[in-house]
Amino acid sequence: MARRITLGAAQLGPIAKDESKAQVVERMITLLRIAAHNAVDLLVFPELALTTFFPRWYIEDLSESDHYYHSKMPDADTQPLFDEAKSLGVGFALGYAELAVDDAGTVHRYNTYLLVDREGKQVGKFHKVHIPGHAENEPWRVFQHLERHYFEPGPEGFGVWEAFDSRIGMALCNDRRWSETYRVMGLQGAEVILIGYNTPLHYSPDPTQNALAGFHNHLVMQSGAYQNGSFVVGVAKGGIEEGVDSLAQSVIIAPSGQIIAQAITTGDEVISANVDLDFCATYKGLLFDFNRYRMPEHYGSLTVKPGAKTPPPES
Amino acid sequence: MARRITLGAAQLGPIAKDESKAQVVERMITLLRIAAHNAVDLLVFPELALTTFFPRWYIEDLSESDHYYHSKMPDADTQPLFDEAKSLGVGFALGYAELAVDDAGTVHRYNTYLLVDREGKQVGKFHKVHIPGHAENEPWRVFQHLERHYFEPGPEGFGVWEAFDSRIGMALCNDRRWSETYRVMGLQGAEVILIGYNTPLHYSPDPTQNALAGFHNHLVMQSGAYQNGSFVVGVAKGGIEEGVDSLAQSVIIAPSGQIIAQAITTGDEVISANVDLDFCATYKGLLFDFNRYRMPEHYGSLTVKPGAKTPPPES
Repeated sequence: MARRITLGAAQLGPIAKDESKAQVVERMITLLRIAAHNAVDLLVFPELALTTFFPRWYIEDLSESDHYYHSKMPDADTQPLFDEAKSLGVGFALGYAELAVDDAGTVHRYNTYLLVDREGKQVGKFHKVHIPGHAENEPWRVFQHLERHYFEPGPEGFGVWEAFDSRIGMALCNDRRWSETYRVMGLQGAEVILIGYNTPLHYSPDPTQNALAGFHNHLVMQSGAYQNGSFVVGVAKGGIEEGVDSLAQSVIIAPSGQIIAQAITTGDEVISANVDLDFCATYKGLLFDFNRYRMPEHYGSLTVKPGAKTPPPES
Repeated sequence: MARRITLGAAQLGPIAKDESKAQVVERMITLLRIAAHNAVDLLVFPELALTTFFPRWYIEDLSESDHYYHSKMPDADTQPLFDEAKSLGVGFALGYAELAVDDAGTVHRYNTYLLVDREGKQVGKFHKVHIPGHAENEPWRVFQHLERHYFEPGPEGFGVWEAFDSRIGMALCNDRRWSETYRVMGLQGAEVILIGYNTPLHYSPDPTQNALAGFHNHLVMQSGAYQNGSFVVGVAKGGIEEGVDSLAQSVIIAPSGQIIAQAITTGDEVISANVDLDFCATYKGLLFDFNRYRMPEHYGSLTVKPGAKTPPPES
């Protein structure tokens, strides 16, 4: 019997700076209901789905940005989303800013993805690994991209979780531009990779890249899907948010690299695709049979940290 | 001053089984002259450019296939090509089957790329790393893909050579489907990656991939170029060779991932592009600033050999 699942992407349009989390959750619940109507099993929300993309503004004292972060999930603002999803029987992935305090009392700020199954159980949590942009205020930019001010990299790296009768991986935004992201999950047998993103259409350091934003976005996700025999669900927060025009073009991609569903608006929109997870095997088991064809003895330099003199010993 | 270079791809149409090497070399010399007319500095020939793609037939006794291999380069058959290139001042990359005998007298059969500069100096040699297909005769296939019978993987891995006022990397055919190929060269600062290929349009193990051959070919090379800020020259032997229809669609790709030149026939054809090598820096120095943004501490599993229990120690 085919392992069929309906994957869904819940693209969000702009979230204004003064929009409350309750208002955003209401929009998300509307998308949840549309998804449920379309028999979606797993609905993927974008990166930092609950707020405006606040790293575009500099706040010197980080603690003044605490209202953007969540120290527990669900909390009062998001409980209605969790309740509705459970009652509809729709699993979901939620991107949000997390404020975690470790046992030593140290505060950590992560760009987080949380995976919740159809029964409402939290089955996996991912902290963004590749943090793009910059850490200091750079007033020459049209707008800031201060992710390295607001977030530290996730210490756990990339994982894969057994859920939805499948193996699910997660990544966020800039992670998707690095081939290693997909491969580390592919080596763990990921069949579906969830990727939320916020991507401005203006790249201050090199405006020749502006018109290529959509091309690059699909290029990296399609090649990541193909080269690892995985489905990819790429979900945007798009549209013009606080004056910054951002890429939408959310997609669901097959292990063939083909786009099988795509958002056509820049606002709140649900797309979905009913797929057979066993289709992954036509790539994972043939052209990309890792055990048969990969040559890890020649990849040593990939794991060398900058400044290190030699590759690690081969295992 | 911009470091400008004219890159060229010399696509070859089919080579019949009974076509002599002298005849093929004559075709290649014609392409060399067209390239020289177009001011090409570096002309890239495809994989196994001197013969038909012989791995499609099974020969039990490998020594009976020796006439497909070269034990020195140039030899009598290819000397005219080397002479003409030197006299025209055109550098080139030549793909051929190599028979090497090591100091212990052991015979090695490699799928080889040789890089020759504009002065006729041999500056680099690459042995294909990822050997696709199978090693045993599989009569159920429409035709064989016996590369693992005819070739052993190159023991040296992927290198980059200082030449053409640039840093040049090489790969062959199946190598281009693996993101590690580009990254290992990207980490060595490759600005131009040369890739020759022979790709049948029929993939016996999964015919759903047949119609996607052209898409996959460009997808992997475009993402490899973009993710490493490198130019890629992808060169086919295309057309219907001994009844097997093969992908042409040779391309020159910019560090932006954009195709900037493309063959439009399936036969002998030269394409070229005059490019500024310094353009690589807009990708290598910004979004893909490896030292700043890569997270090698989370890539450990990429270098683990199948069957090994743990990743190598971090360096």
